[in-house]
Amino acid sequence: MFERLEHFFRRWNKVAGIKDVAKRARVGVGTVSRMLNDSGYVAEGTREKIEIAMKELNYTPNELARNLYHKRTGIIAVLVPNVSNPFFSEFVDHVEAELYETGFKMMLCNAAKACSAEREYLDMLNRHIVDGVITGVHSLDVEEYKKIHKPIVALDRYLGEHIPVVAVDHKEGGRLAAETLIDCGCRKILHFKGATAVKSPYHDRHYEFERVMKKNQVETYSYELEWNRFDSEYYREVVADVFSKEIDFDGVFAVDELAIECMNEAIRRHFKVPRDVKFVAYDGTFITEMVEPKMTAVVQPIASLAKESVRLLNELIGGREYKNKRVVLGVQIRKGNTTIS
Amino acid sequence: MFERLEHFFRRWNKVAGIKDVAKRARVGVGTVSRMLNDSGYVAEGTREKIEIAMKELNYTPNELARNLYHKRTGIIAVLVPNVSNPFFSEFVDHVEAELYETGFKMMLCNAAKACSAEREYLDMLNRHIVDGVITGVHSLDVEEYKKIHKPIVALDRYLGEHIPVVAVDHKEGGRLAAETLIDCGCRKILHFKGATAVKSPYHDRHYEFERVMKKNQVETYSYELEWNRFDSEYYREVVADVFSKEIDFDGVFAVDELAIECMNEAIRRHFKVPRDVKFVAYDGTFITEMVEPKMTAVVQPIASLAKESVRLLNELIGGREYKNKRVVLGVQIRKGNTTIS
Repeated sequence: MFERLEHFFRRWNKVAGIKDVAKRARVGVGTVSRMLNDSGYVAEGTREKIEIAMKELNYTPNELARNLYHKRTGIIAVLVPNVSNPFFSEFVDHVEAELYETGFKMMLCNAAKACSAEREYLDMLNRHIVDGVITGVHSLDVEEYKKIHKPIVALDRYLGEHIPVVAVDHKEGGRLAAETLIDCGCRKILHFKGATAVKSPYHDRHYEFERVMKKNQVETYSYELEWNRFDSEYYREVVADVFSKEIDFDGVFAVDELAIECMNEAIRRHFKVPRDVKFVAYDGTFITEMVEPKMTAVVQPIASLAKESVRLLNELIGGREYKNKRVVLGVQIRKGNTTIS
Repeated sequence: MFERLEHFFRRWNKVAGIKDVAKRARVGVGTVSRMLNDSGYVAEGTREKIEIAMKELNYTPNELARNLYHKRTGIIAVLVPNVSNPFFSEFVDHVEAELYETGFKMMLCNAAKACSAEREYLDMLNRHIVDGVITGVHSLDVEEYKKIHKPIVALDRYLGEHIPVVAVDHKEGGRLAAETLIDCGCRKILHFKGATAVKSPYHDRHYEFERVMKKNQVETYSYELEWNRFDSEYYREVVADVFSKEIDFDGVFAVDELAIECMNEAIRRHFKVPRDVKFVAYDGTFITEMVEPKMTAVVQPIASLAKESVRLLNELIGGREYKNKRVVLGVQIRKGNTTIS
């Protein structure tokens, strides 16, 4: 079968094909095919003859045809809401490196732009364009995923019992953030929480944060963010909205970029950080170390999240099946200069 | 040919194929093929019969086989040194959206990690895995590119007369930066310049910057950066190095992240910005607006760079050939609070 596909392909491209190689090496096409596909014994002397023939004919096996034969493309689709968001750009950076190590190429989709895009990429699994999907998209239609029984790994998202989830211990993250602000003596907390519309492990950090605050009788103003908005413009709107409401606060807990925007506005309004207001960021991407004062942050191990996602996906591609599989990684607090230790 | 490929593929996957559709619709296989490939007339009534048969058999044409037939994959490889670098993450973000609009998927490669990766992706052009390449990599081996006569577009890089280049007017950018610092009354400039090892349009900004400074008799200390290093750790090393050398300066010109790291260190050393030191960043990515004070920056129109790169690539894929083609886009200075206007 492979030989015939190959042959068609060569005719279209007018370059040496497996038949030409076989002819020149004076061996059967099946022998060349066995060697190329490592699908059977080929004597050493014969191998040499074939290799010489390949060199002479400048033959390179056609990968499309080869993948068609092996029913795999060697491509993994990675879906993120927005790759220019620091968390996702670091994740994609690491995932690409991990996939490359295991012999896969990465197809990247920014799914925030269109809901149809996410569906389209999932469809590519069925259409044999990609061998697997790693999705960090917080879209709403979980049903779409339930229908697909192909290799899919979810980052920080519940998509059905057959799809493994990789996430950090958000509950621990919420606790660390809350205790850090309480230790600084904060009494009035401004807490920005993710959209509860999506079923995700990340809500745990908000529940735990609020639980600890309540237990310690610390006043907390929770501000729920819109679903799937990660852009700077939105964060600035939110900050403007908060300050226009004249909410009184001495401690802030928010995702990296929002915490930074909020701190900068506070500084512009002549608040001293950390004297007047304390800040704890969540994610701990490079931007929290790029601002002055450096942000205290709950750090997600992005490299490990990427490594685990790729490891699980490889297992699924290898035929392994999981039910309610969850890989939970630890988080750490990195003390910066926006809190008092 | 298509029918036979299709047929093989169906056998491997045990799903309905073009032959099953033809049989059920009681038409010839060639007719179904003509309709699927839009390669000839098919009567309206026949079309309907075929469509009904496809629905009933839940038939979707296999894309791998289809691409094999059309000799295209619908995939474009995009090479960047490091996608977690804000400039490249914004570029990739826009390129992906532009490609998606024109019906292409994006394969992303972080080439900084391994020189072999870049070569490998170029090789995929020859191996029909991707239809084109957009490269923003500043690797050193231009020779590799000269050998390839397939659709390639270079971002800010000269790779041979047959490869179109998309870049901004760096000379204008260098002039704007220099004049802005001079207008602030700077007399001692710290100028971080890119590695001159690579042949790139971006050097123009450094040449022009130094020319204007010299013309105005402004003392300038030029610090040449290592080739292909865009990571925060490196930038921090550079800043530490500069301050350890106790270089005296009242104005700084550097790429976004480096300018920010340098400003933060100055602030930690109790310099007042912009009173004591002025800063002009180059690129103007989102991070320059995320720091306090906001950075004055020469802004590259990243969305337009992406749009032009995709437009040119589509023309090359369409068969158009270019010689010494250069698309040069304008830059603007965005005044922040790190300079005095």
